[in-house]
Amino acid sequence: MGGSLALALRGRVAKLVGVELHAATRRQALRARVVDVATADLAEGVRQADLVVLATPVSAILATLATLPHLRPSGCALLDLGSTKTAIGAALAALPDGFEAIGGHPMCGKELAGLAAADEMLYCGQTFVLCRNGRTTPRVEQLALELVTAVGAQPLFLSPETHDEIVAMVSHVPYLAASALVHCAAAMADERVWPVSASGFRDAARLAGSDPRMMLDILQTNRAAVLARLAQYQQALTAVAELLQASDEQLLSAWLGETQRYYADYRQHKEQASPTIHNLPA
Amino acid sequence: MGGSLALALRGRVAKLVGVELHAATRRQALRARVVDVATADLAEGVRQADLVVLATPVSAILATLATLPHLRPSGCALLDLGSTKTAIGAALAALPDGFEAIGGHPMCGKELAGLAAADEMLYCGQTFVLCRNGRTTPRVEQLALELVTAVGAQPLFLSPETHDEIVAMVSHVPYLAASALVHCAAAMADERVWPVSASGFRDAARLAGSDPRMMLDILQTNRAAVLARLAQYQQALTAVAELLQASDEQLLSAWLGETQRYYADYRQHKEQASPTIHNLPA
Repeated sequence: MGGSLALALRGRVAKLVGVELHAATRRQALRARVVDVATADLAEGVRQADLVVLATPVSAILATLATLPHLRPSGCALLDLGSTKTAIGAALAALPDGFEAIGGHPMCGKELAGLAAADEMLYCGQTFVLCRNGRTTPRVEQLALELVTAVGAQPLFLSPETHDEIVAMVSHVPYLAASALVHCAAAMADERVWPVSASGFRDAARLAGSDPRMMLDILQTNRAAVLARLAQYQQALTAVAELLQASDEQLLSAWLGETQRYYADYRQHKEQASPTIHNLPA
Repeated sequence: MGGSLALALRGRVAKLVGVELHAATRRQALRARVVDVATADLAEGVRQADLVVLATPVSAILATLATLPHLRPSGCALLDLGSTKTAIGAALAALPDGFEAIGGHPMCGKELAGLAAADEMLYCGQTFVLCRNGRTTPRVEQLALELVTAVGAQPLFLSPETHDEIVAMVSHVPYLAASALVHCAAAMADERVWPVSASGFRDAARLAGSDPRMMLDILQTNRAAVLARLAQYQQALTAVAELLQASDEQLLSAWLGETQRYYADYRQHKEQASPTIHNLPA
């Protein structure tokens, strides 16, 4: 995420400083001119930055926010890219005077992590959620909007709570849904299961490949919303199971028809929003 | 499915006769040389065929099997491509003497139906399940194996019951899982849900775009297996919900780690099976 952002910002900002613990990744980032300066020292990285962007898993962002006032006592402008926003929003709001901060979440990503997967077009045409908090000033909001525009994304302002409710539905429950599929398929313990599985399973299961450490942070910092949406999801599954159990062809058929209609609404939105980018691969 | 099969068999069989009710599709199939002869008349289509292939939704296959003995009283060799195999297997086994029949299910497909989506490479490298029944002879089994090989697929013999158990897990429950996701997302009735949704939701939801008529047939002819696997799926979701509810970080983390491991096993199988075909798109 951070590597892609740096690539997308290259030539559009005065200077890019990358903070990265691994020496090999720092060397790679400098060699590929992803950043102008690379350091392992957070204090050095944030010392002169006009805008500090935190692009790590949620728990690392929270840990960084706890140390930042010591590293930059006079404050700075701050944007985080954490996957959940309520807990981080509260931590941003609690920063001392001098800090100006806004939450962000670009709605894009890749299965693959690491600098090698960085892609300067990653944000292009995608929604970039921005969440205001008690430390958000017009100046940092303007800076964030300029960044969003510079990388080709579409800004969408949401409260941290609304963001977390929606991503619970469109991202975190889908992850658990995919994960439960691979758990159940593996539990069959039948070597013929994978050969019989085809592209439908591949797509339905793909999110199960997400990084478990990142997902643990996400689930723990969005627990209430995830549990509420998961309960609703289970109710929907129970409803269709009951129609099937009862052999109620008319109601089952109506449910399947609604599925197709909802899916068509969703696809239509995506195609209207960005015909060349959101289309499914052929 | 039928159009792709005809394209894949072109030049490898003496003559291809297509039975199709829609005149426009017949004209299109002849113009594109997908078949040598196209007719709307099933009796004419099956009169001289060395092998009759039924490539329609399950209920249409069952209806055709009920009339076939009248259209071809002396019997013929028969392969069906239905998505569920137990009900069709029983109908095949009940055909009169003279019929030689085997069930088949190529584990590939597309979101798009119709002749325009036909693809001669559709079967290439994919698993093609074959199911014996009481009317299966060595001759029709050999014919089916030649067809599977000719289209570049890998044959896998399963009993109809085992096939239906496995596809309940890797295809039918994933369809219901995707469908319940779009039902719940639509139920939020919030215009910001689709803009916030990204590639994870797109892939997790894709199966919800399946044809509802085809899915109704599938669910009704595989009810017991689907209900059993759906119950197991709900148990897996309940298990992870309880870990999250209890804030049991250690057990939750272990569950997420298992997810990643199962998913890696699955991907490794697919990559070993066919490195150039099964790889995910970049």
